[in-house]
Amino acid sequence: MEKGVILTGDRPTGPLHLGHYAGSLRNRVSLQYKHKQFVMIADAQALTDNAKHPEKVRKNVLEVALDYLAAGINPDVTTIFIQSLVPELAELTMYFLNLVTVSRLQRNPTVKEEIVQRGFESSIPAGFLVYPVSQAADITAFKANLVPVGEDQLPMIEQTKEIVRSFNRIYRCSVLVEPEALLSKTPRLPGLDGRNKMSKSLGNGISLSDSPDEIARKIKTMYTDPKHLRVDDPGTVEGNPVFSYLDAFDPDEAFLEATKDRYRNGGLGDVTVKKRLLDVILAELGPIRARREQFAKDPDRVTRILKTGTEAARTVAAQTLNEVRKAMRIDYF
Amino acid sequence: MEKGVILTGDRPTGPLHLGHYAGSLRNRVSLQYKHKQFVMIADAQALTDNAKHPEKVRKNVLEVALDYLAAGINPDVTTIFIQSLVPELAELTMYFLNLVTVSRLQRNPTVKEEIVQRGFESSIPAGFLVYPVSQAADITAFKANLVPVGEDQLPMIEQTKEIVRSFNRIYRCSVLVEPEALLSKTPRLPGLDGRNKMSKSLGNGISLSDSPDEIARKIKTMYTDPKHLRVDDPGTVEGNPVFSYLDAFDPDEAFLEATKDRYRNGGLGDVTVKKRLLDVILAELGPIRARREQFAKDPDRVTRILKTGTEAARTVAAQTLNEVRKAMRIDYF
Repeated sequence: MEKGVILTGDRPTGPLHLGHYAGSLRNRVSLQYKHKQFVMIADAQALTDNAKHPEKVRKNVLEVALDYLAAGINPDVTTIFIQSLVPELAELTMYFLNLVTVSRLQRNPTVKEEIVQRGFESSIPAGFLVYPVSQAADITAFKANLVPVGEDQLPMIEQTKEIVRSFNRIYRCSVLVEPEALLSKTPRLPGLDGRNKMSKSLGNGISLSDSPDEIARKIKTMYTDPKHLRVDDPGTVEGNPVFSYLDAFDPDEAFLEATKDRYRNGGLGDVTVKKRLLDVILAELGPIRARREQFAKDPDRVTRILKTGTEAARTVAAQTLNEVRKAMRIDYF
Repeated sequence: MEKGVILTGDRPTGPLHLGHYAGSLRNRVSLQYKHKQFVMIADAQALTDNAKHPEKVRKNVLEVALDYLAAGINPDVTTIFIQSLVPELAELTMYFLNLVTVSRLQRNPTVKEEIVQRGFESSIPAGFLVYPVSQAADITAFKANLVPVGEDQLPMIEQTKEIVRSFNRIYRCSVLVEPEALLSKTPRLPGLDGRNKMSKSLGNGISLSDSPDEIARKIKTMYTDPKHLRVDDPGTVEGNPVFSYLDAFDPDEAFLEATKDRYRNGGLGDVTVKKRLLDVILAELGPIRARREQFAKDPDRVTRILKTGTEAARTVAAQTLNEVRKAMRIDYF
């Protein structure tokens, strides 16, 4: 694959968890050496449905930055930046809003579902309705051609493509770049409750910053196969979150397959499987926690990284905005 | 009245006409010495329903600037600026969008009417729906407490007040200032056709930049009282646009009252009244045209004025944005 430009990021509304790590953070760590990667802490987007809780957003900007650095995102090659400190993104959003109809936004399947999830219904904040346009601005400002997403985010990429095509057609230019979705192959990690996907808002996850004790406690309470009551009972692996986590993190595939067989046939207790899971997760999160502690001790260094990244991001976005304004013929002087 | 801060402006979609002059430009010329006045060339707002015709917007930015300077707006006391060159306005709009619901915007009477006028119906550009929020950003970024408007724009001021109250309440601050409408006492000038108000898009007006010949020709074709066929017939003054214009511009009130009496009683022909109107308008527009020609000869000077004004506007808006970000607790470093 030719070297591309990646735009990705997270809403700073809570600490990042194992689901983020398995689904995207891990990928970013390897992608950063293959492509030019921009990672955005999407505080402005978080405010679209947290306008009344800015302190939550504020606090989590630093936490998410620490999670990134802890997970191995290398600020020497990845540009980590804070969305609201790149005002060019707001500017571009305003121009894009003129190219999208209200009814098109209301038809966006992702937004429709999220409106129901958040109980907004008739009182949707306008900022929330238009956030796919804001995402299009985020992606195109960096001329990203690769956007790592899950299945459920595909409508967002579609919306961005539509805006790019409209813009380039109306203003007879090729300033904006159509992005492609980089679909994650990892299935969504379920929550500890086994009923929902792991989610910050449901509090059913293991945070990257959780202590070993906390992780042990959480794994103990994990949902497994409710019919697997005694060690000798045959158990079900499919839909059993303990095995979903092992699938995502156990480095020893052969051992994992053997474990699954024993569980299916009966004779393997949940306590034993959970012990293995705890070992696997502690091994995975150990170096991450160590790096987190290092960075957390030096907040000035983290601030410096965010400042440098944000400045670099602004330079790129400002260059795109210059081209955008020129194409729109509003480059007055 | 205590010295206030005024924010006003125009969408650069065509040359300014007598209606603008009677309804607002004239006032701005006197207000600029009583208050701190910001006059915005609202190119970004014009793009909300002219996204496909940026060249029209581009061209008229300079024309509107010339109209301002010609009408006597003094750049030494009034800050004339181009909206899209103050990106802080886009930023502030994005934050305000989170404080307003979609249904509230859809209920805005001014927007509802304009949607019908423009035949948008189900295909309203999102930018057009949210433009009242953008106006709230324009007003509050300069902490304007006085906004000159016509009756039909009162819902816009109401929307701005609501946003200011929400913002100051949610973020427990008094950063934003509630504006008051400065209602124009001059009734809306009718168009030459006597059926509609004078309007750029209907082409039924006299532009400030029209030549004397053009003005003479336009006044000749003006609608008057259709029942006033012969000089001796009694005529109607009310709803007769010739008299509406005389009301707005004839400096000799006693003479105007006498003329109205003669017209009502019969014995005064349209040709004579129109001759008086032509004299009055040429006298009013003469110095304006002269100033326009002076400025038009020196486009560099106009550019300098716009640059200086835009820089001054940015400084004020950036200061407000700093306070806004601090209140929202997203002032990271």
